[in-house]
Amino acid sequence: MQHGNHVEWAIHCCAVLAGLPEGSRLSVATLAEFHGVPKAYLAKGLQRLEEAGILDGSVGPKGGYRIAKPATEISILDIVLGLEGRSNCFRCTDIRFNNPCLVNRGKGPCLIAVAMRKAEKAYHGELAQTSLADLLQELGETADKPTLEKSAEWLSERIR
Amino acid sequence: MQHGNHVEWAIHCCAVLAGLPEGSRLSVATLAEFHGVPKAYLAKGLQRLEEAGILDGSVGPKGGYRIAKPATEISILDIVLGLEGRSNCFRCTDIRFNNPCLVNRGKGPCLIAVAMRKAEKAYHGELAQTSLADLLQELGETADKPTLEKSAEWLSERIR
Repeated sequence: MQHGNHVEWAIHCCAVLAGLPEGSRLSVATLAEFHGVPKAYLAKGLQRLEEAGILDGSVGPKGGYRIAKPATEISILDIVLGLEGRSNCFRCTDIRFNNPCLVNRGKGPCLIAVAMRKAEKAYHGELAQTSLADLLQELGETADKPTLEKSAEWLSERIR
Repeated sequence: MQHGNHVEWAIHCCAVLAGLPEGSRLSVATLAEFHGVPKAYLAKGLQRLEEAGILDGSVGPKGGYRIAKPATEISILDIVLGLEGRSNCFRCTDIRFNNPCLVNRGKGPCLIAVAMRKAEKAYHGELAQTSLADLLQELGETADKPTLEKSAEWLSERIR
């Protein structure tokens, strides 16, 4: 079980957008160049985040994306679920009811599904702990300063 | 991100095998019939669990599977990792180093990967909490009794 690459790309893009001056936008082309990833595939992921209310997109030659909510209100979980949808990572198809010895279907969900859902809840709980604002703060404290400065300048030249 | 169906099937099969008298085996055909799942695809999953040291398989017309360790020592996590391997569910390809403004690569892992790994650890931690013995005990307490009894009889007739 593995997230697609678009999860990595989208979280990075959202963090970059969250670090821009309020209301500023970047085009998909700029985001793709900054992260060295294919523009067409990145565009699909960002569109899904727009549909999920995480990004705000504008079209046209001067179009681009900005975050649709404050950086404190967008968690990594929001981005992951925005991209992948809210279906459970464990799909219970209730094979217990295929049992040739089944007499009564009984009550309640399958115990295996319950254990799997509990674990997924813990996974989501952890992902919800980290917001874009947290990432930006940590980045400011730990990242290479010359790279940060040069990046800020490069991005500011491309803001829309 | 979703587990394949074989995860559901394999956990159910392991729980059934864990409930047999010690040393008893069931064939893949019996396990497939009991769970109403395709035998060939189930066989592949069970073979992986054998390779992971969770199941013990014997070949030949009287061959079959039994659990390779006590039921208290096999967790749902063991089964999931045995089937899917130990690669992380978030693959960090370090796109931060694709940055055209990169001056120094800096130290330490990507913050996004750190957050994703922490969540995966929580997921695995929860899955490790439930052993096959736990599942069997809970099943004995909550499942439909007539179905349990009929199943035990059906399975005992097919033990190898």
